[in-house]
Amino acid sequence: MTNYEQFMNRALILAMKGSGYVSPNPRVGAVIVENDKIIGEGWHKMFGGKHAEIEAAENSKRTDFSGCTLFVNLEPCSHVGKTPACSDFIISKKFSKVVVASLDPNPLVNGKGIRRIQEAGIEVVTGVLEKESNWINRFFFKYIQKKSPYVILKIAQSLDGNIALSSGISQWITGEESRKRSHQLRSEVDAVLVGKKTALLDNPSLTVRDVNGRNPYKIVLDSYLTLPLDLKILKCDDRDKTIICCSVNASTSRKAEILKLAGIKILPVETYENGKVTLEQMLVDLTEKFNITSIMVEGGAEIFSSFLERNLIDEIQLFMAPKIIGSGIQSFNNFKINKLNSVANFNIVDFDKSGDDIQITLVRN
Amino acid sequence: MTNYEQFMNRALILAMKGSGYVSPNPRVGAVIVENDKIIGEGWHKMFGGKHAEIEAAENSKRTDFSGCTLFVNLEPCSHVGKTPACSDFIISKKFSKVVVASLDPNPLVNGKGIRRIQEAGIEVVTGVLEKESNWINRFFFKYIQKKSPYVILKIAQSLDGNIALSSGISQWITGEESRKRSHQLRSEVDAVLVGKKTALLDNPSLTVRDVNGRNPYKIVLDSYLTLPLDLKILKCDDRDKTIICCSVNASTSRKAEILKLAGIKILPVETYENGKVTLEQMLVDLTEKFNITSIMVEGGAEIFSSFLERNLIDEIQLFMAPKIIGSGIQSFNNFKINKLNSVANFNIVDFDKSGDDIQITLVRN
Repeated sequence: MTNYEQFMNRALILAMKGSGYVSPNPRVGAVIVENDKIIGEGWHKMFGGKHAEIEAAENSKRTDFSGCTLFVNLEPCSHVGKTPACSDFIISKKFSKVVVASLDPNPLVNGKGIRRIQEAGIEVVTGVLEKESNWINRFFFKYIQKKSPYVILKIAQSLDGNIALSSGISQWITGEESRKRSHQLRSEVDAVLVGKKTALLDNPSLTVRDVNGRNPYKIVLDSYLTLPLDLKILKCDDRDKTIICCSVNASTSRKAEILKLAGIKILPVETYENGKVTLEQMLVDLTEKFNITSIMVEGGAEIFSSFLERNLIDEIQLFMAPKIIGSGIQSFNNFKINKLNSVANFNIVDFDKSGDDIQITLVRN
Repeated sequence: MTNYEQFMNRALILAMKGSGYVSPNPRVGAVIVENDKIIGEGWHKMFGGKHAEIEAAENSKRTDFSGCTLFVNLEPCSHVGKTPACSDFIISKKFSKVVVASLDPNPLVNGKGIRRIQEAGIEVVTGVLEKESNWINRFFFKYIQKKSPYVILKIAQSLDGNIALSSGISQWITGEESRKRSHQLRSEVDAVLVGKKTALLDNPSLTVRDVNGRNPYKIVLDSYLTLPLDLKILKCDDRDKTIICCSVNASTSRKAEILKLAGIKILPVETYENGKVTLEQMLVDLTEKFNITSIMVEGGAEIFSSFLERNLIDEIQLFMAPKIIGSGIQSFNNFKINKLNSVANFNIVDFDKSGDDIQITLVRN
């Protein structure tokens, strides 16, 4: 790693500390360096809070930064939003150099922040650890560009592709470390989502356990609101973070009223011909109404297959246990093709041992 | 790596050069070191040929090895077989030290070689890179201990566990690099094996292509000898290396005579109640009659399931493509369990990117 990369790497580590709290804002970390030594660092801590650059400057207890270099993983903003523009702040504090990883895809910024700083005579270097930085802010990038959440499928399966025995039993195929990592992922996404069958069969709580972090929204698809009220996600203390997506008709039913009175959110969505909620509309509405920029879909096979069929998967987190189940329930059971060139293609971007299992990260091809 | 490990590592690399040619003997490499410099190296090149220790000594052009250390991955033999005992050779050549990775599990040797050398006053160090060395000679160890071949299942599947579309189409799920690695594996095992359906549907040639190496035996299971004579494995030039395992009855049929006249080997095997050949007996007979110490089973799902059901799998080489097929033919389709604690457990011992795919090596738990 070059010096630049080392300091940017530190900024990325700081950025990650905002996980789960800054959405729909990006994760941003900043490091101020003078004579190859860090004199201040900070990160964007929560939505609406101070930007990383300001945090780092305050942390350094300086007021004049001539001779200093600012490392920040996202282009400093040029527009006055919930906080003043960071590019103006950088200019006024007389930084000598700014090193940036990713340009801000937000059309309100997108190069303008950097131009402004350059025009003030400050040297700007871009693209340092850009790939790593883009990965950290992949939720934000999708949100800004498509106004729709980034969709991760989390699959826990046997090596022969089963997420459950044919009887439906699935607890537990993967091991402790993989479950811990799943909880880590939950702490980073805005919402987790399951289908009606999974909600009924597994009765999951969908909370963050075993790791630090806040609970995400819990989303369940239940077109006709037939789920019993005693499910964990409907009677938990934070059920105001439970969203049921149902048909427009069901959303005005008596059951809907009862659920709403209990504090549960009801999202009415148009349905496909088969009576299932329209995933495309649901995703856009979840962003629009709840500022949800990332969703982890946790099952089951029917839901996985629907997201795949409609080409709505951005990423797959595959936890594969070194076990063979044989004839069971396959992860994408309901997805059917006739020719090998119709298969859904992904790219492996990372893989790692996860206890006795293996964790594979794939993104859409 | 320590010095010892570095020289032993070189011995292991040399040992691998015997792949495919030394069976049923082990793969052995030897390095002679004087003052931290290699002065001679050699490996066991073919069954019946000189042992690695002798090759290394001859390569060094020396006759007296006082002050020299011999690194060899397998315990030097103490019995006179096709060649004189290496332990006697080492003593007569006055080596000062011998460093060994694995003990020879052969009851004719098993510690006797080392004791003999020690009793002659030569220092012996054991266990250097033992795990790596045991892995290289896993076929030999199984053969010596069980008189039965080491069984590897090679599975090329989609990430959701399909080895073919529901129509049976399977060419090609995995990519070029994975196919190349499969050919590498073929060059190292004594035999490859497929079921009748795979032989019919895919009409594979089961030869080594894309890499250097000799062709293994080609084994096909065909209880009633119903396979057509124009299959590649039955009409190829080296069809004397094709073995058909069939029922005892079929082995005396007219079809069997025709096949034998063509040079093809017929192995009569008792059958299970379902008419399929008894895998346990077949394995033992393949070792006894053809000196086969390792078999790579290449498909299909029915064969994979049978080997799993009967607990005959030593290792799985899983090539997983980043593709989703959905509802297809699963690798262990015919294997059925009712409880999660009945699953077949393996251990992941290695994993690696293989082109766009991932290669995972698993061994029996």
